Amino acid sequence: MEVGQVLHMNAGTGETSYSNNSHLQKKVISMTMPIIEEAMTNLYSSTSPSSLVIADLGCSSGHNSLFVVSELIKIVEKLRQKSGHQSPEIQVLLNDLPGNDFNTIFKSLPSFQKNLSSQLESKDAGPYFFSGVPGSFYGRLFMRKSLHFLHSSYSLHWLSQVPEQIENNKRNIYMASTSPPNVPKAYHSQFQRDFSTFLKCRAEEMVTGGRMVLTFMGRKSEDPTKKDGSNSMWELLAMALNDMLSKGLINEEKMDSFNIPHYTPSLSEVKSEIVEEGSFSIDRLEFSEINRSTYYKEYNHSNISEIAANSIRAVAESLLVSHFGDGIIEKVFSRSCIFSYLGVQVP
Amino acid sequence: MEVGQVLHMNAGTGETSYSNNSHLQKKVISMTMPIIEEAMTNLYSSTSPSSLVIADLGCSSGHNSLFVVSELIKIVEKLRQKSGHQSPEIQVLLNDLPGNDFNTIFKSLPSFQKNLSSQLESKDAGPYFFSGVPGSFYGRLFMRKSLHFLHSSYSLHWLSQVPEQIENNKRNIYMASTSPPNVPKAYHSQFQRDFSTFLKCRAEEMVTGGRMVLTFMGRKSEDPTKKDGSNSMWELLAMALNDMLSKGLINEEKMDSFNIPHYTPSLSEVKSEIVEEGSFSIDRLEFSEINRSTYYKEYNHSNISEIAANSIRAVAESLLVSHFGDGIIEKVFSRSCIFSYLGVQVP
Repeated sequence: MEVGQVLHMNAGTGETSYSNNSHLQKKVISMTMPIIEEAMTNLYSSTSPSSLVIADLGCSSGHNSLFVVSELIKIVEKLRQKSGHQSPEIQVLLNDLPGNDFNTIFKSLPSFQKNLSSQLESKDAGPYFFSGVPGSFYGRLFMRKSLHFLHSSYSLHWLSQVPEQIENNKRNIYMASTSPPNVPKAYHSQFQRDFSTFLKCRAEEMVTGGRMVLTFMGRKSEDPTKKDGSNSMWELLAMALNDMLSKGLINEEKMDSFNIPHYTPSLSEVKSEIVEEGSFSIDRLEFSEINRSTYYKEYNHSNISEIAANSIRAVAESLLVSHFGDGIIEKVFSRSCIFSYLGVQVP
Repeated sequence: MEVGQVLHMNAGTGETSYSNNSHLQKKVISMTMPIIEEAMTNLYSSTSPSSLVIADLGCSSGHNSLFVVSELIKIVEKLRQKSGHQSPEIQVLLNDLPGNDFNTIFKSLPSFQKNLSSQLESKDAGPYFFSGVPGSFYGRLFMRKSLHFLHSSYSLHWLSQVPEQIENNKRNIYMASTSPPNVPKAYHSQFQRDFSTFLKCRAEEMVTGGRMVLTFMGRKSEDPTKKDGSNSMWELLAMALNDMLSKGLINEEKMDSFNIPHYTPSLSEVKSEIVEEGSFSIDRLEFSEINRSTYYKEYNHSNISEIAANSIRAVAESLLVSHFGDGIIEKVFSRSCIFSYLGVQVP
C-alpha cells in the first residue's frame, strides 16, 4: 500500500488535550500548521481532487474544534486558486467518542460557515459539508478508501484501555520510577496494540496517496519511567491520592486498582510500529518541545500551581469520577494544588 | 438524470412528526416499511453495491431515530444473503437541524449496534458507520453523487420559512377558510420553492439509480383551506391564541404576525413539482390515511383532548416560544385543551 504519511510528534512538558486550555491547544496547532500545509500541498498537487474528504480525529468540543478545519479549508482554497482549478467539494468529518458534546459544535456551524465565507476572498470556494462521527479511533470509523486527509491533535496519547495485569502497580497510577518492571512493559504493549490497530484501520479508510498528520504527546527518553512532563503530572495526582489514602478518605483497594490509560511513546517506538504495521510511509517524524514557563509568561498566568492542578483535573476528572465516585473531585484537586507548591519544579 | 424514486405520501388526520408520540411515529414507519423494502430491493438488485450510503433526513432524536435504520440494515442483510454476495459496508447519515439533540443519538449508538448485531444472524454482516449531519435539507447536505438511499419520514411538511407577504392573515395562523385568497397562494408558492429546492439538492447528491422514500403529511382535497386533520390542528391553536388576545394576555401585533411554516400538499401538487423539476422519476406516489380514533383505541388513550393539545404543543412549542416568549406556553396549552373539548370533533 502506498499511503504517504507525515507524522509529527509534539511533546510538551505535561500538557495534554484538554479543551479548557484553548490558548495552549491553539499554540500547538499553530506550531503544527506548516507541517499540515506541506502535507495538504503534497496531496493536492499529486491528485488535484474534485472532492476532498478531511477527518479530524479527537475533535473535542471547545473553541479549537473547528480551528484546524478552517485553516485546512484556507490552504485548499489557496492551492486551488493557484492551480486555476474549480474548487473541490470538501467533506469535513469530525470525530470524537460518543460522549463528546457534538451538539455544541453543530450549533456553532452556521456562524462558523458564515465567518469562513467572509474570510475566503473567492465566491467560488466550497461547498463544505460537515458531519460528526462518534466512536473510538481504535476501531473503524469510515468507509473503505473514503478519506483523503486525516488530522489528529493531542488525542493519540490516550490508550484504548488501562493495560491489563498491572495489579501490582500499587500506590502508583502510571509508569513511575517505583513501578515494578512489568508495568512499563504492559503500558508499552498496550500502546503497540492500540497504535497498530489505529494504523490498520486508517489504512483501510484512506485513499491511495492520502495524507495523515498526527500530533500527540511523546517523551524524549527511551526510559518510560524517567521523570518528564507527562509522568510528573501523574505523579502529582498520585501524591494527592496517596495522601487521601493515608487519611482514610479513599479506599485502599480503589487506590491500588486505579491507573491512567495514557502513554507517551518515544520517537523510536512510534517509528517501529509504523514500519512493522507496514501500510504507511513516513514523510516526517519530529519531536517538538513546548516550554511551559514561556507559555505561562506569554499568557500572564500568575498562580502556576493552580494551573497545573486545573490541567490535571481537566484531563483526569472523568477517569477519577468513574473510579472513585463524584465526592472525590474537590478534595483531590485542592490537594494536588498544594502538592504542586511543594513537590514539583514549576518555574 | 435517471434517478428512481418512490414517493409515499402519508396523510394522517392532524398528527405530525413529534418525537414524544413514538407509538404513532413507529406506526407510520411500519406502514411505510413495505415501500421502503421494495425500493431497497430494486436498488440492491440493480446495483449489488459493495458499499451503501443511506441517509435519513429529519431523524429527530427520539426512540424512532434509529428504528428505520435498523430495519433498512436488516433488509440489506437479507438481500445480500439471498444473493450470496459479500456484505456491503453501510454508511448511515443521520440528518436534522443543527439544534437537534444529536448527543443523545450518538450516546445510544454503542448499545444500538450491539442489539443490531445480535438480531442479525450472520457474523459477516456490516461493518456499519454512523454520522450526524446537521443542517437544513432545503440546502445541500452531502457530497456530489454520494447517496444510494434516502429516507425521510414526517419532516417535509415543514416549510423552510413562513411565506412572505401574508401580513393580512390576521387572527389566523395558517391557511384557514377565513384567510384572504393571497394566503393559500403564498403558502403554495413557498411549498413549490422549497420542494423543488429539496429535489434539486438531492438530485446532485444521489448516485444514478439511487432511491428515495419520502413520507410526509398531505391533504386529500385540492382546496388547501378545507378543514382536514392538519388545518384543524392549527385552528385549535389559533382559537386559544385569539382567546388570549381578547383577554389582553398577548399583544395584537404579535398575534397578527404569527404564522405556522407548515404545508400539507395534495398528491397532484407533489407530482407536478417532481415532474417540473425533472431530476426524478416516480415509482410510487400514494396517499394513506391513519384513523386517529383507531389509533387512540389501540393505545388505550382516554383523555383525547389532552392528547390533541400535547400533540400540537410538541410541534409548535419552539415556534410559539421564539415568537411570543417563554411565558405563553402553559397558558396557551391549557386553553387549547379546553377548546378541544368544545370545538373539535374527537371520537
